[in-house]
Amino acid sequence: MNAERLLARLQELGRVGSTGDGGCARLALTDEDREGRDLVVTWMRDLGLDVQVDAIGNVIALLEGREAGPPVMCGSHVDTVATGGIYDGNLGVLAGLEVLETLASAGVVPRRAMAVAFFTDEEGARFAPDMLGSLVYAGGMALEEAYDLVGIDGARLGDELARIGYLGSLPCPGLAPHAYVELHIEQGPVLERHGEVIGAVTGVQGISWQEVVLSGQFNHAGTTPMAYRHDAGFAAAQIAVAARALALELGGDQVATVGKLDLRPDLVNVVAGRAALTIDLRNTDGETLVRAERRMAETVDRIAGDEGVGVERRRLARFDPVRFDDRIVDLVEKTAREHGHPVRRLPSGAGHDAQMLARMCPAGMVFVPSAGGISHNPAEFTSPEHIEAGANVLLHVLLRLAEDDVVAGSGP
Amino acid sequence: MNAERLLARLQELGRVGSTGDGGCARLALTDEDREGRDLVVTWMRDLGLDVQVDAIGNVIALLEGREAGPPVMCGSHVDTVATGGIYDGNLGVLAGLEVLETLASAGVVPRRAMAVAFFTDEEGARFAPDMLGSLVYAGGMALEEAYDLVGIDGARLGDELARIGYLGSLPCPGLAPHAYVELHIEQGPVLERHGEVIGAVTGVQGISWQEVVLSGQFNHAGTTPMAYRHDAGFAAAQIAVAARALALELGGDQVATVGKLDLRPDLVNVVAGRAALTIDLRNTDGETLVRAERRMAETVDRIAGDEGVGVERRRLARFDPVRFDDRIVDLVEKTAREHGHPVRRLPSGAGHDAQMLARMCPAGMVFVPSAGGISHNPAEFTSPEHIEAGANVLLHVLLRLAEDDVVAGSGP
Repeated sequence: MNAERLLARLQELGRVGSTGDGGCARLALTDEDREGRDLVVTWMRDLGLDVQVDAIGNVIALLEGREAGPPVMCGSHVDTVATGGIYDGNLGVLAGLEVLETLASAGVVPRRAMAVAFFTDEEGARFAPDMLGSLVYAGGMALEEAYDLVGIDGARLGDELARIGYLGSLPCPGLAPHAYVELHIEQGPVLERHGEVIGAVTGVQGISWQEVVLSGQFNHAGTTPMAYRHDAGFAAAQIAVAARALALELGGDQVATVGKLDLRPDLVNVVAGRAALTIDLRNTDGETLVRAERRMAETVDRIAGDEGVGVERRRLARFDPVRFDDRIVDLVEKTAREHGHPVRRLPSGAGHDAQMLARMCPAGMVFVPSAGGISHNPAEFTSPEHIEAGANVLLHVLLRLAEDDVVAGSGP
Repeated sequence: MNAERLLARLQELGRVGSTGDGGCARLALTDEDREGRDLVVTWMRDLGLDVQVDAIGNVIALLEGREAGPPVMCGSHVDTVATGGIYDGNLGVLAGLEVLETLASAGVVPRRAMAVAFFTDEEGARFAPDMLGSLVYAGGMALEEAYDLVGIDGARLGDELARIGYLGSLPCPGLAPHAYVELHIEQGPVLERHGEVIGAVTGVQGISWQEVVLSGQFNHAGTTPMAYRHDAGFAAAQIAVAARALALELGGDQVATVGKLDLRPDLVNVVAGRAALTIDLRNTDGETLVRAERRMAETVDRIAGDEGVGVERRRLARFDPVRFDDRIVDLVEKTAREHGHPVRRLPSGAGHDAQMLARMCPAGMVFVPSAGGISHNPAEFTSPEHIEAGANVLLHVLLRLAEDDVVAGSGP
């Protein structure tokens, strides 16, 4: 494995859509995304891989094996959020490419075919929902529905796919791989805080996103006695405070976030007549997540009722928790130990393409630490040593899956 | 007094910057504000009044008296908030114009000169602080300081004043009137709830406006355990909830409002790294207001400390409570009774230009009811009967001040 080459490619891809502050912005299916895709496809083709594009723009590069049959696949995504770093997604794709290049250069022809893929619109920052490309690949959304999605800029997904030249011919849903393993940065602080280098990811938290719109009464902040108010902003603030309290009360890995909160008219001297906020709830345990949603709904109703404001809700996204294949989780943990890396089994707090692939084949993930737990931020950083360690674990996990029958003969 | 003409002018001025829902938006020194100003100036000129503009854009129309000396002045403002009604401010200006037109048409030349004025940027919705024009008129802020104020849209006040053609030549501070009386809608629910038609305003609540900026850490909403967060949005929500609790605890006429709250990056899946909010505190009692400010500051520090977020504060406005001249309050009350209107002495919960004029001359206000207490809202409404009653009381109060020596020979 040539760690220098991998690190250089991360930097080079990171310069596409650079925001000038160490980060990059390559929102899905924009010109910047196209430029990033083109660069990676060039690298894939230079390696002599068979590169194919499917009908939702996912790109799959294949290295033939000694036997026919579905490939052992790795991959991730190359789109980013507007304030993205250079590691999120990119690392999994370029490390996969490095794995294939290492094998090809060494003249190794694995028993099973191997593939590296990058999936369209993982971030969902331009077209919701996120993990769209892998969702469509796994058959979770029909192509026509995906094509008709409208982005934050009003663009239609299908049009943008064609415009940037990534409306491919490979059908969706795609063929189920033999297995799928994704290397990704943790995007959280856990590995770093515990001095660990590799995470053997046990699954992905279930995600519940909703928007709550509160309708109160605009009023003058000076002349309206407190008792007469129907303050949508106050109700929204109470909900944000209650969300934190609920997460702490449920404990475990329950998280709750009000990250978006907009008041109208948003003026110093006007009691807000309207407030729109989002509530992001996540848990690895499906039942607890449902309980969190129910409790949050009751709390919103109670707060709105007490303040005399109306409530409208809109579900923005909902994914059940995903459990990765135990055999792959074990293999990742064992491989990391064999290479002398401190390792921890942990769930992912973020959504990943691997959770969609887990619908069609045994799947798992390898995490490497994020400095300071920072992600979706130009300051996102993972050390070269950790990148090399992660890529090596990925290589050996993929080789074992390709050569041996770790997950042979069984679906997810 | 021609009530029809007054009501028609209120409607016509209300159509300038119309928001299409019965309200209007004429933020200070915008093109819409200019258009509203131009319309009122045209009416003033049509009446043959001497119209002058001062260096902060206040407009004063003078009707000569039989004797030399400072005029008895009335007035208010014609700027509005972004979601403004058609009565707030406009009523005082157009009723004043109606008073002067009634006298002029009847050939009445009062003993003292009479004037109607409208003051720049009373609302403070574009350029803080509010009541800016009357503050500068009364010598409470230097012209150069006012010119350098930057609006919410980044515009410089001095530039905007020149751009819309209202950078006048009359010096600031202005000449002290003999007395100042302002007719205004109550903007609160008290008169209506008690079945009263006229408010004899005893004074104005003290106002404390501040902006609080909280600096936490941007982070991924899924991967950052609750215990590791420095969530600026959560801290801001706690502050908004605490402001309500403080107002209820202090009781009396204490009010507290968080009407503006902006998160960054304001995304569903990112823990807010920055939150900016405003806190509006008001009380007629100066000592209680100071106590409210102190308590709020302690609460902000405690909340920020607990969450590990930084705090920056900026004072946006601070006015002590104002007591109007007892002789004028008495005169308003007596005049209302003479005309058979149920009347109540009450403080104003909103700031008004009259409180700035009270620094330089005996001042007072006349309130008329606001339907439902609603103001700063397209649904703002005062009945034609109440408008006529208020304008008549204003006329007779101004005449008494102009003809007699109610407040002669004494400063504020």
